[in-house]
Amino acid sequence: MNSKLNVGVIGLGRLGTVYAMHLAHRVPNANLIAVADLRESLAETFAKEHGIPKWYKSHEDMLNDKDVHAVAVISPTSTHKNVVTDAAKNKKAIFCEKPISLSLEEAEAMIDSVDKTGSFFQMGFQRRFDKGYIAAKKKIEDGVIGEPVVLKSSSRDPFRPSLEFADPKHSGGLIADMGIHDFDVARMFMGEVKSVYAIGGTLAYPEMKEIGDIDNAIINMNFENGTLGVVDLSRNGVYGYDIRAEILGTKGTLKIGYLRETPLTVLTKEGVTHDVVPYFMERFGEAYYLQIKNFVDNVLQDNEPAITATDAISALRISLAATKSYKEKRPVEIKEYHK
Amino acid sequence: MNSKLNVGVIGLGRLGTVYAMHLAHRVPNANLIAVADLRESLAETFAKEHGIPKWYKSHEDMLNDKDVHAVAVISPTSTHKNVVTDAAKNKKAIFCEKPISLSLEEAEAMIDSVDKTGSFFQMGFQRRFDKGYIAAKKKIEDGVIGEPVVLKSSSRDPFRPSLEFADPKHSGGLIADMGIHDFDVARMFMGEVKSVYAIGGTLAYPEMKEIGDIDNAIINMNFENGTLGVVDLSRNGVYGYDIRAEILGTKGTLKIGYLRETPLTVLTKEGVTHDVVPYFMERFGEAYYLQIKNFVDNVLQDNEPAITATDAISALRISLAATKSYKEKRPVEIKEYHK
Amino acid sequence: MNSKLNVGVIGLGRLGTVYAMHLAHRVPNANLIAVADLRESLAETFAKEHGIPKWYKSHEDMLNDKDVHAVAVISPTSTHKNVVTDAAKNKKAIFCEKPISLSLEEAEAMIDSVDKTGSFFQMGFQRRFDKGYIAAKKKIEDGVIGEPVVLKSSSRDPFRPSLEFADPKHSGGLIADMGIHDFDVARMFMGEVKSVYAIGGTLAYPEMKEIGDIDNAIINMNFENGTLGVVDLSRNGVYGYDIRAEILGTKGTLKIGYLRETPLTVLTKEGVTHDVVPYFMERFGEAYYLQIKNFVDNVLQDNEPAITATDAISALRISLAATKSYKEKRPVEIKEYHK
Amino acid sequence: MNSKLNVGVIGLGRLGTVYAMHLAHRVPNANLIAVADLRESLAETFAKEHGIPKWYKSHEDMLNDKDVHAVAVISPTSTHKNVVTDAAKNKKAIFCEKPISLSLEEAEAMIDSVDKTGSFFQMGFQRRFDKGYIAAKKKIEDGVIGEPVVLKSSSRDPFRPSLEFADPKHSGGLIADMGIHDFDVARMFMGEVKSVYAIGGTLAYPEMKEIGDIDNAIINMNFENGTLGVVDLSRNGVYGYDIRAEILGTKGTLKIGYLRETPLTVLTKEGVTHDVVPYFMERFGEAYYLQIKNFVDNVLQDNEPAITATDAISALRISLAATKSYKEKRPVEIKEYHK
Repeated sequence: MNSKLNVGVIGLGRLGTVYAMHLAHRVPNANLIAVADLRESLAETFAKEHGIPKWYKSHEDMLNDKDVHAVAVISPTSTHKNVVTDAAKNKKAIFCEKPISLSLEEAEAMIDSVDKTGSFFQMGFQRRFDKGYIAAKKKIEDGVIGEPVVLKSSSRDPFRPSLEFADPKHSGGLIADMGIHDFDVARMFMGEVKSVYAIGGTLAYPEMKEIGDIDNAIINMNFENGTLGVVDLSRNGVYGYDIRAEILGTKGTLKIGYLRETPLTVLTKEGVTHDVVPYFMERFGEAYYLQIKNFVDNVLQDNEPAITATDAISALRISLAATKSYKEKRPVEIKEYHK
Repeated sequence: MNSKLNVGVIGLGRLGTVYAMHLAHRVPNANLIAVADLRESLAETFAKEHGIPKWYKSHEDMLNDKDVHAVAVISPTSTHKNVVTDAAKNKKAIFCEKPISLSLEEAEAMIDSVDKTGSFFQMGFQRRFDKGYIAAKKKIEDGVIGEPVVLKSSSRDPFRPSLEFADPKHSGGLIADMGIHDFDVARMFMGEVKSVYAIGGTLAYPEMKEIGDIDNAIINMNFENGTLGVVDLSRNGVYGYDIRAEILGTKGTLKIGYLRETPLTVLTKEGVTHDVVPYFMERFGEAYYLQIKNFVDNVLQDNEPAITATDAISALRISLAATKSYKEKRPVEIKEYHK
Repeated sequence: MNSKLNVGVIGLGRLGTVYAMHLAHRVPNANLIAVADLRESLAETFAKEHGIPKWYKSHEDMLNDKDVHAVAVISPTSTHKNVVTDAAKNKKAIFCEKPISLSLEEAEAMIDSVDKTGSFFQMGFQRRFDKGYIAAKKKIEDGVIGEPVVLKSSSRDPFRPSLEFADPKHSGGLIADMGIHDFDVARMFMGEVKSVYAIGGTLAYPEMKEIGDIDNAIINMNFENGTLGVVDLSRNGVYGYDIRAEILGTKGTLKIGYLRETPLTVLTKEGVTHDVVPYFMERFGEAYYLQIKNFVDNVLQDNEPAITATDAISALRISLAATKSYKEKRPVEIKEYHK
Repeated sequence: MNSKLNVGVIGLGRLGTVYAMHLAHRVPNANLIAVADLRESLAETFAKEHGIPKWYKSHEDMLNDKDVHAVAVISPTSTHKNVVTDAAKNKKAIFCEKPISLSLEEAEAMIDSVDKTGSFFQMGFQRRFDKGYIAAKKKIEDGVIGEPVVLKSSSRDPFRPSLEFADPKHSGGLIADMGIHDFDVARMFMGEVKSVYAIGGTLAYPEMKEIGDIDNAIINMNFENGTLGVVDLSRNGVYGYDIRAEILGTKGTLKIGYLRETPLTVLTKEGVTHDVVPYFMERFGEAYYLQIKNFVDNVLQDNEPAITATDAISALRISLAATKSYKEKRPVEIKEYHK
C-alpha cells in the first residue's frame, strides 16, 4: 500500500481531463505518468502543463508502455471495445467510464477478454460515489425506511446536447445516454429489473426529430423482487441540472438531491429566489474524484472492483430494453437480453 | 345574488360533516337547511347542534322538500347513482363528491338523467381549489414555463385504510380510489389522456392481498397532444400525507406541494427535524371550503359548473383503464372506454 | 360548560372585524350579541349582515347591557383605559387586544380597577396561539434543546404604516408598536428581562423623520436569569411579512416561522422562486381565532386567563425601557419602570 | 504571469496543513518549496510526504532562504508580530491568517514594518472567498436590495474549544476569537463601525468561567453611515457549524448560509430530518483554497491585496471595543481605539 500506482489516461475530452487532473494532483496514491489522445498536440500540451512525463497519440503505444500499470478509459464509447480489449491483453488494471458500450455483443466481448486475462476492471458510475447516494444506501442498510418498495429517479439536463453528440448512433439515444445512470441507481437500491415500459416524445426541441431522437421519457420498472420503479428523463431542465432520487420504504422515504448551488437566498417583492446547480461538474465533481481515487485504492489493495463489468452490462440491458419498449410500445422483459 | 341558497347535505360521514359545517357556519351565501343520513339519530344530533332546522333519514324525503334548492351528495359512492338521479328528477342543483361512480355505465346514466332535467351539476375534486394548484395553473397560462411537456403527480396516504373500506368492491381498488385525484390533476394541466400503463404490487401490507388489492402503483400516461405523465400512488407514506405534483415545461418547471405542518424546525445533534402534514384535512381543509363555496356561488350566479360531469367521467375512464392495464400487463387506450 | 357566553365586541376596525366574525360564526361556545363602534352606521351594517341582534355607538351603552357577559376590547389603544375601567365596573369578563396602553400609569390604573372588581381579564398576544410558538414551548418543556440560553426574535412589516398611524403619539413608536410582540415572546420563552439596549434609525423611509419615528431597530436584552436576547424590527420587509424567532439552548436550537405562502415553487432560468407570506392575517389568522376561542373557553370554564394583565404590563415596561435606551443611548434597567 | 511563486508556509497546525496542501497540490501558480514548524520532525515528515524540498524549525531560517519569495503565516497569533516583522525585513510577500494580533499596538507595529519595507501584505478572512458572501456582495452592487440598512451575522461552533485554546490570553476571548469574522463581514457589507454594545454570559459550559471567558454573546453595532448591525456568537451550536448572515435593504434582503451537508432527506414517522454542516472545513474548505490562490495570483500579477492590513486592524478594533463594552456594560465608540 505504500507504493503508488502508475496510471495512464486514455482520452482527454471534457471528462478525461477532469480525471487526469485528479490523478495528477489530488489522488494521493496515484502517479499519472502518461496521457493519450488522438489529438497528439493536445496530449502533449496537457502533459507538459501538468508535469506528466509521457504522452501518446495512440492508445496502443501507451498500453505497450511497461511503466503504465493501470489505465482510465475515457475515450468515446465507440472505442471502448478496442481499448479495453487491448488493455486487458496488456494486463493493465482498467477503469472504464460509462457506458461500457452501446452494444450488448461488444460489451460481452470486452468482458470475455477481461475475464480471460484476469485484468482488474472497474466501471465508472459516479453517482455511487456521491455522498447523498452513499448516505441513502447506509440508511437503508440500517433499516431506517424498512423494506424499500418504490424507487424514483429523475435526471434533467439544463440544455440539449449538440445534434452531433445526441445522434443515437453515437449516444444510444436519450434513454440509454441519460437513463443509464438512473438504471444503475435503480439496481443499486432495489436489485435486478425484470421488465420495463417506456414512453417518450420529442417535445421541447423539434430539431431532435431530424436525428431520430426524443427529448423526454418516462420508464417504469418491475424489479425481480416485486418492487416498483420509475425513471423520468428530460433534456429541457432549462433551469439547471436537476438530479433526484427517492426510495420509498415501508417505514419511511429517502430523498436524494439538492437544487441550490450558491448559499444565498434573495428576497424581494418578486418573491424568494435562489440559483440552481448549473451542470454535472458542480453536482458530481467530488464524486468523480472519489471514484477514480477508489479505483486506484482498489488496485493497490487488491480489493474487488466497486462497480463491476456485470453492473455495466446489467445497466446496458435495461437501457436497451427501455429503448425497445419505447419503440415497440409494449412492456419488454430484461430476459430478452440475456444470452 | 343577494338571496341565499338553501342547501341540504346528504351523507354525514367524515367528509359530509366537514361540508355541512362549512355550509352551516362559513359559506356566506348558503343556508344549510337540512341534513340526511341513514343513521337518523346522527342526523338529528348534528342538526340540533348546528342549528339546522330539518333532518331526514332518507335522501328521498329531503329531495321532496321544496325548500331545499341544492344538495351536496357526500354519501357512499355506491349510492351516488340513485341519489343524483333522484336529485335531478327533483330539479335540485347538485354537488357530487368524487368519485362519481365506480362504474362507467352508472356514471353515464347519472349524467343522462342530469342532462335530461337540466339540473346544475358540479363535481368535487378539491385539489382544483387548493392555492398551490391554482397558482400553478395561472403560471402556465402566463407562459412562465413555456409549453408543459411532462406531468408528475404523487399521492401517499400515511396509513392504509381499513380492509373493509379498501375492498375494491367499494373503493374501486388503489388505482381508482387514490389515483382519481391525480388523473383529474393530469387532465387539468395537460389535457386528455390517450393511453396508460400501470404497474403495482402489494408491498407494504400483505393483508391487502386478502381483499385483492395492491398498496403501491405507478401509472404512466401518454396524453392526446403527445405529452407525457406519470402518477405514483402509495398507501405507505407512513411519515405523513404527501401530495405533490410537478409540471415540466419547455422553459421551466412548477412544483406543487409542501411537507411541513408546523412552522417549527428543531436542530439537535440528531440533525435538523420538522414534522409533516398529518392527513388530508390539514392539507386540503381550506380547499374543501372553497370548493363548496364555489358551488354555492355558481348556482346563485348562474355560472357554469367549475368541474363538470364530463370531468368526472374522464377521470373515471382513466382509473378504469389504468386498473385494467395493471391487471392485463399491457398498455390500455382510453378509447376502449368510450361508447 | 354547556351554556354559551354572550359576547360584545367594542371597536370594528381591521382586527375588531376579524374577532367579531370569529365570535359570530366560528367560536362554538360564543354568542356574539352586540357590537359597538363610534361609527354607528358601520356597527349597524355589520350587525345586520352577521345576524347580531344589537349594536351600539358608545361602549358605555353596551356595557350597561345586562345580556352582555363578556367584551372584547379592540378599540384604539388610547381608549383602552376608559373602556376597560368601565367594563370592570360593569363586571364584564374582558379580553383586551395589545397593547394594553402606551402609558404605564394608565395600564396600572386599569389593572387596579380590574383587581378591585375581580373581573376576568385576558390580554391578547396572538403569537402565543400560533402553532409554531406553541410547539416550540412544548419542545423546551420536553428538554429537547436543554436549557434555553439565547432568544432571537425578528419582526418585519412589508410596508410602512401611514404616517398618521405610525405617529409615536398614537403608536408609541416603532419599538413599542412592533416590538411588544417580540418582548412578549421573549418573556414567554426566557423569563423576565433585566435590562435592554436599543439602537435604531430612520433608514428606509425618510418621511418618518417628520413624525419623529425610526423604521429599524435592534434591541438586545439581558434576562434576569443571565440569559441573552435580541430583537430586530423593521418596517421595510418589502418582500413580505417576516416573523421569526429562535431559541438556542445548550442541546439544540428551535427556529419558528415560515416564508412561503403558496405551496408552489417555480424553477426557470432565473432561478428557483416562491412567494412570501403577504401580511399578518395570512400568518396569524388562525392564531387570532384560537386566541378569542381560548378567552371564551376560559371564562365559561372558570380558568385562569392565558395571558394576564401582568404580562401586558411587563411587555409594556420593556417597550418603554427600550425606547428610552434608544433615545438616551444607554442601557436601561427594567426596574427603572417598577413602582 | 507564467512563472510560479515560490511559497513557504510557517506553522503546520490544523489550518497551516490545509494551506500547505493547497499550495503543494492545487494552486496552479504556486510552488510550495518550504515549510517551517517548531516541531521540526513534523515539518520534515510533512515535507517528505508532499514532495516539498525544504523544511525548517525556525521561521528565521526560512525567511533567510532567498528561494522563498512569499510566506503564509499560519503560526499561533502570539507569534504573528515577530514572524511578520521578520518577513517584511526579508522582503517576502506575506499572507497572514486572522487575527493579525490580539493587541492593537502589536498590529500597528507590524503594519509599520510592512509599510516601511513595502512588502506585499494580504490578510486572511476566508468568508470573503465563500461563494455565498461573494454573490451577496454582487447582488448589493447590482442594486437588488436597494440600500443596505441592517446587517445580521451569526456564528456558532458545534462544541467549545479546549480550555487551553479558549483561554482569553491566547484566544482574545469569545468576542475576539469568533466575532472577528463577523466584524469583518460587517465592514465588507456596511462600512465602518462607529460604536458597539455587547452582552454575554457563560451559559452552556460553566467550566469556561475558570478561564474567565463567556460562551455566548450578542453585539449590536452602529455604523458610521447610520445603519445598524447585530452579531451573535455561541460556542454551543451543538447541532452543527452554523454560520449565517443577512443584509436587509430598502428593497429586499439577502440571506447567506446553509445547514445541510449531505444531500439526503429522511422522512419517517419521527418527521423530516437531515444532517448539518459538521464544522468549518466542510463549510469553508473551498474558500480557504480560493483565498490562498488569490494571494498567489495577486503577488504574481502585482495586484493590490484583496484584504489589507487596515482591514485586519479595523476588525481588531471592533473586537476590542466589543470586549470592553461587554466588560464595562456600556456602549463603546470605536474611535476610543484610534491613535
